Amino acid sequence: MNVSAEVICVGTELLLGSILNTNAQFLAQQLAEIGVPHYYQTVVGDNPDRLKKVLAIACERSRLLIFTGGLGPTPDDLTTETLADFFEVPLVEHPEVLADIEQKYARRGRTMTDSNRKQALLPEGAAVLPNPSGTAPGMIWQPRTGLTILTFPGVPQELQLMWRETAVPYLRSQGWGREILYSRMLRFWGIAESALAEKVASYLDSANPTVAPYAGQGEVRLRVSAWADSEAAALQLIEPVEHHLRQIGGMDYYGSDDDTLATVVGRLLQTHQHTLGVAESCTGGGLGAMLTQVPGSSAYFMGGLISYDNQAKVNLLGVNSEDLETHGAVSEAIAQQMAMGARSRLGTTWGLSITGIAGPGGGTVQKPVGLVHIGLAGSDGFVTSVEHRFGELRGRDWIRQVSACAALDLLRRKLLLLSQSSD
Amino acid sequence: MNVSAEVICVGTELLLGSILNTNAQFLAQQLAEIGVPHYYQTVVGDNPDRLKKVLAIACERSRLLIFTGGLGPTPDDLTTETLADFFEVPLVEHPEVLADIEQKYARRGRTMTDSNRKQALLPEGAAVLPNPSGTAPGMIWQPRTGLTILTFPGVPQELQLMWRETAVPYLRSQGWGREILYSRMLRFWGIAESALAEKVASYLDSANPTVAPYAGQGEVRLRVSAWADSEAAALQLIEPVEHHLRQIGGMDYYGSDDDTLATVVGRLLQTHQHTLGVAESCTGGGLGAMLTQVPGSSAYFMGGLISYDNQAKVNLLGVNSEDLETHGAVSEAIAQQMAMGARSRLGTTWGLSITGIAGPGGGTVQKPVGLVHIGLAGSDGFVTSVEHRFGELRGRDWIRQVSACAALDLLRRKLLLLSQSSD
Repeated sequence: MNVSAEVICVGTELLLGSILNTNAQFLAQQLAEIGVPHYYQTVVGDNPDRLKKVLAIACERSRLLIFTGGLGPTPDDLTTETLADFFEVPLVEHPEVLADIEQKYARRGRTMTDSNRKQALLPEGAAVLPNPSGTAPGMIWQPRTGLTILTFPGVPQELQLMWRETAVPYLRSQGWGREILYSRMLRFWGIAESALAEKVASYLDSANPTVAPYAGQGEVRLRVSAWADSEAAALQLIEPVEHHLRQIGGMDYYGSDDDTLATVVGRLLQTHQHTLGVAESCTGGGLGAMLTQVPGSSAYFMGGLISYDNQAKVNLLGVNSEDLETHGAVSEAIAQQMAMGARSRLGTTWGLSITGIAGPGGGTVQKPVGLVHIGLAGSDGFVTSVEHRFGELRGRDWIRQVSACAALDLLRRKLLLLSQSSD
Repeated sequence: MNVSAEVICVGTELLLGSILNTNAQFLAQQLAEIGVPHYYQTVVGDNPDRLKKVLAIACERSRLLIFTGGLGPTPDDLTTETLADFFEVPLVEHPEVLADIEQKYARRGRTMTDSNRKQALLPEGAAVLPNPSGTAPGMIWQPRTGLTILTFPGVPQELQLMWRETAVPYLRSQGWGREILYSRMLRFWGIAESALAEKVASYLDSANPTVAPYAGQGEVRLRVSAWADSEAAALQLIEPVEHHLRQIGGMDYYGSDDDTLATVVGRLLQTHQHTLGVAESCTGGGLGAMLTQVPGSSAYFMGGLISYDNQAKVNLLGVNSEDLETHGAVSEAIAQQMAMGARSRLGTTWGLSITGIAGPGGGTVQKPVGLVHIGLAGSDGFVTSVEHRFGELRGRDWIRQVSACAALDLLRRKLLLLSQSSD
C-alpha cells in the first residue's frame, strides 16, 4: 500500500457539471505543498452504494482519505452516515457540536431546524474537525490502524479554513509531510513544445528535481519541481537545473512563475526609462489591454490607437493611403507605418503595431487567415517588422491572443539586445 | 455493470493542483445534456502502473471510458500506449495521421520532430478521433464487447471541438442518450442575482423545465433546462417559461445562449446602420478588444483611442486640459469629452468612453478604486455619462471587465430606446 493520500469528492452536482471542482485543486496544491504524496482523485455522486464501492477501493490503495461534500443537513447529504455504515460503527451525537450549530443559527437570527441535528452525529471514535465559519463540522477518524479519514463540507471557503486551521497541524503531528515539493515555472516564447522538449531531453527523466514541459496559449513552460525538507534545500536542487534550462532556452526564455510577457516588457521599459505607444488593427485593443493589465503600467504605457477601419489607419495614424491601396492593410509597409504613427502621435520611445487577418472571413490564398504583421518603430528612424503565419485552425480568439503576445515578444527581444549592448 | 460513463483525467499537473480540471466539468455537463449517465470521475497521474489499476477498476463498473490528457508528444504522455498495453494489443502507425501532423506543422512554418511520430500510433482496431485544431488525435476504441473507450488531449479547446464534432454523433449512433437535456441560457445585465431570483422565485421550484440562476463577471444568467425525447419537444416546454422570464427581466434582459453584450450591441448598430468609435482609459483597449472579438465587427466598429496617459487624452481626443486639471481624469466632464472626441476623431455615429480607477493604487476617499465614468456621445450634440462604483474588493481585472461591459450596456439601452421609438 502506498503511504499516500486520496481526495474523494462527493456530490451529484459535480457529476452534472453544475460546479467546477475547485476543492480538488485546492487540496492537490496543499498536499503538494506540505509534501503528502497524492496519486488519485475520485468524484462520486450522493449515492451510498457507489460511495461504499469507492471507499473499498480507496482503503486498499491509500492511507489518508480526504472527503469533501455531503455534510449538509439535507437528505442527500450522507457522507458521514455512509462512512459509519461501511466500517460498521454506530453514530453518536456530539452535544457540543449541537450547541455550536444552535448558537450559529441564533447569531444569524434563525432557529435551528431538526434536519440540522444530523450534523452533530459522528461515528463512534471520530474527533470533531471544527468548522469555524459554517454549521457542518468535519471529522478526523482512524477507523482502523494505518487509515486516516478527514471529512470536509463542500463549501470552498469553509473547507479551506478548516484545512489550514486544523487538518494541516493534525497531519504534521502525525508525521505526514516531512518533505515539501517546491516548484519553479520557466516560461518560453517563440519555440514549440516538442522542440524545447528535445533540447532539454536529458532533464526530462531526472528524478529530483523533475522537469516537465507544458504548452498553452502559444507559450511553452517547463516546470522544475524538487522534494526536500525545506524550501531552501529545494531551491538548492532547483537552481543549477533552472540556470542550465535558461541557458538552453536563450532568448526564447522570457520569465518565470507569475511573469507575463507584459510584465517582463514593462520591467525592461522601466529599466531603460523608455515609453510605449501602440497601434492595433486585428487585435482591436487587446495589446493595450494586455499591457494595462499590469498595475503601474501608466509609468511606461502612454496609450494607443485602434485603427480597425482602413480610413482610421489614415486619419489616426497617418498611414499613406496609396500604400494601403498597393500593399493592402495586412502588409509589412502598413505595419511599419502604423508603428511609426503610434510613436509620433503618442510621443513615445517605441511604437508597436499589429495588423493581421484574425478570420474567420477575410482570408485569401496570398493572405490567409492567421497572417499577421507586427511593426516596431524606435528612435533615429529605426523601424522593423515581422511576419507571422499562425494558421486558421485555432480560431479568431487564439490568433488575436498570440498576435498581441508576439508583438510584446518582438519588443522584448529588442530591449534585451539593447540591455546587452549597453552592458 | 452500469450502462454508464466514467471520466478519467490523466495528468500529474492535476494531482499537483497546477491546473483546474475544467475538462471534467465540461464532459460532465455534456454527458448530462446528451443523457448519458455518469457516476464516477477519476484523476490519476502520468504513471502507467497506476493508470492500469484505474483502468481495471473502471472496466468493471462502467461501459464508456472517456480519457483526457496524455496524448502529447513528450515522454510523459503515455495514455495511448498504456491502454494498448493493458488490453495487450499492439500499436500501429496511421500514415494519414502522420501526414496530417506534418501538414499542420508546415502550415505554421515548422518542421515536425521525431517525438511527434508517436502521436500517429493507435492500438490495433482503434479508429482515429480527429483533432481539427491540434496535432494529437484521440481514438474511438472497443477493446472488448460492451466497452467503449474515447481519448482526448488535455487542451480544453481541442477536446471540446473533438467532443462536439465527432464524439457526440458517434455516441448517438451507438444508441447512447435517448432522452436529451436541452437548455437555454438567458442573460441579464444591471440586476443583482438575489434581486432577479426574487422576481422569478415562482419558477425556481419548477421540475421540467427547471430554472436556475447563476452569477458571474457582473452578469446574471437564468438557465432554463428541459428533459425531452427531442429538441423540438424540449423547446415546447422551455418557450413559454422563457417568454415570461424575459418579460420579467425587461431592459435588464439582454440576450440568450451565446449572445454577449458585444454581439447584441453589434446587431443593434447594424439594424440602425450606425457606427461606433471608443475612447478608453482604465480599460486600456479592453472595450475595443471586446467589440472586435465579434467576427464582422468591422461593419460598425471603426476604431478607438487608448488615452491611458493624461497627455494622450488632450492630444488624441481633444480633452480640455483645464477641465482635466479642475475635475480630474476620472470625472463626468472628462468621460463626456472623451466620448465626443472619439466620435469626432473617428467620424462615427456614436462615441463611447471609459475613464476610471482600476487600482490597486490611485484611489482616494472622494475617488476610490472602482469609481468609473462611462460617456456616450451621439448626433445633434447628444452627450451623457453614468457613474459606477464597482468597489475594490474584486480587483483590477474585474473592474476593467465590468467597466467595458457597463459601457456596452449603456449604448445597448440607448439603441433599444431608439428602436422602440421608431417602431
